[in-house]
Amino acid sequence: MQLFYTNNSETEFTLPSEESKHITKVLRKKEGDTLHFTDGKGNLLIAEITNSDQRKTRVKLIDKIIQEKQHNYYLHIAIAPTKNMDRFEWFLEKATEIGIDEITPIICEHSVRKKVKTERGNRILLSAMKQSLKYHLPKLNEDISFKDFIKQDFEGNKYIAHCEEGKKIELRKEKKEKRTLILIGPEGDFSTNEIEKCKEKNYQAISLGNSRLRIETAGLVCVTTISNRN
Amino acid sequence: MQLFYTNNSETEFTLPSEESKHITKVLRKKEGDTLHFTDGKGNLLIAEITNSDQRKTRVKLIDKIIQEKQHNYYLHIAIAPTKNMDRFEWFLEKATEIGIDEITPIICEHSVRKKVKTERGNRILLSAMKQSLKYHLPKLNEDISFKDFIKQDFEGNKYIAHCEEGKKIELRKEKKEKRTLILIGPEGDFSTNEIEKCKEKNYQAISLGNSRLRIETAGLVCVTTISNRN
Repeated sequence: MQLFYTNNSETEFTLPSEESKHITKVLRKKEGDTLHFTDGKGNLLIAEITNSDQRKTRVKLIDKIIQEKQHNYYLHIAIAPTKNMDRFEWFLEKATEIGIDEITPIICEHSVRKKVKTERGNRILLSAMKQSLKYHLPKLNEDISFKDFIKQDFEGNKYIAHCEEGKKIELRKEKKEKRTLILIGPEGDFSTNEIEKCKEKNYQAISLGNSRLRIETAGLVCVTTISNRN
Repeated sequence: MQLFYTNNSETEFTLPSEESKHITKVLRKKEGDTLHFTDGKGNLLIAEITNSDQRKTRVKLIDKIIQEKQHNYYLHIAIAPTKNMDRFEWFLEKATEIGIDEITPIICEHSVRKKVKTERGNRILLSAMKQSLKYHLPKLNEDISFKDFIKQDFEGNKYIAHCEEGKKIELRKEKKEKRTLILIGPEGDFSTNEIEKCKEKNYQAISLGNSRLRIETAGLVCVTTISNRN
């Protein structure tokens, strides 16, 4: 099955030209053939081609089926964008495949990269969602400073993955929980000041094992660990 | 700490020009300064610069300390190389960071890519080993056909991750084990014939959760799951 994305709310609509071309030329779909869409909000939309055209294929919705989320937890990762953007984008793709709900790029004291292109990130999430046949699009927030981020409330367990010495709990040994927020710092780690602020806000320091991991690898290990536990 | 690699067995040796330049120009190291090397075989080699030179820095070994492997399991993943080589190389890097011992590219019936450049792959493993401060270089075998690969013996648990229906065990729920071999197939999955052959050879079919994962993501989920369990 191939899954397409649409944010269209009409019962009949025209597909963008790139998709129209793919559907008619590569998949060789014709009038009357069925296509599967998701709106990224948990719906599988079944549509029929009413006009097969290389540039503007038209489809008509024939059914809408609510799909359960493929994972039974809520995971929010707030992560400092990597210097090399490819690495961050790779994290977006992999996290979507494995199962994540919300991602916030946080700009920390030691961050080299201060900006993330949300629109580009969203395209990666969309593509990974379709490819892995999911119906729920993770939410990618605009980047925000660490300082402002931790002022926000979060209902659930809150963790910070930093490299400083000190008492840490092992994420893999933590009990199953419904809602989890994990902070992952930049190349130069969180500053002592930032770690202190997290303590005040009741974030628990976690260990991800005894390997030194890159930012995006730490993110991926968190997603897999939470996914395995639930 | 910055970790360098050497396969030199002399007590005094010259560094390659690229490394010499990095050490003198970027790290601004001088005669008498200490450098840390690994041979990828579990040794930390401590050396002193005897001649600081932009093109041929010379060092003398002053200590050799055996390091324990950072993970207490043996994991061998035999994986079909991806069509897009970047994705396979990402897997090599991430698997090294998280903890793997042996990787074999297997060429399956449905494989589009039939060849892997072992030398290039080894450079990625080396770089990931140094970056993640490990002293054991994973072994990257030459690519081999699926047919020939499964003729080989392996002492330990043997798993195959395929997408066909049928009875599967969940990898995350499997008990801790010393030695594990996991097979991961190509874009078009293993053929029915290959899956049948694995059954004869006592490979157990595993599930990695209910998401549809790309090849390299499936590989990483396996490494993280085994790493978390041990």
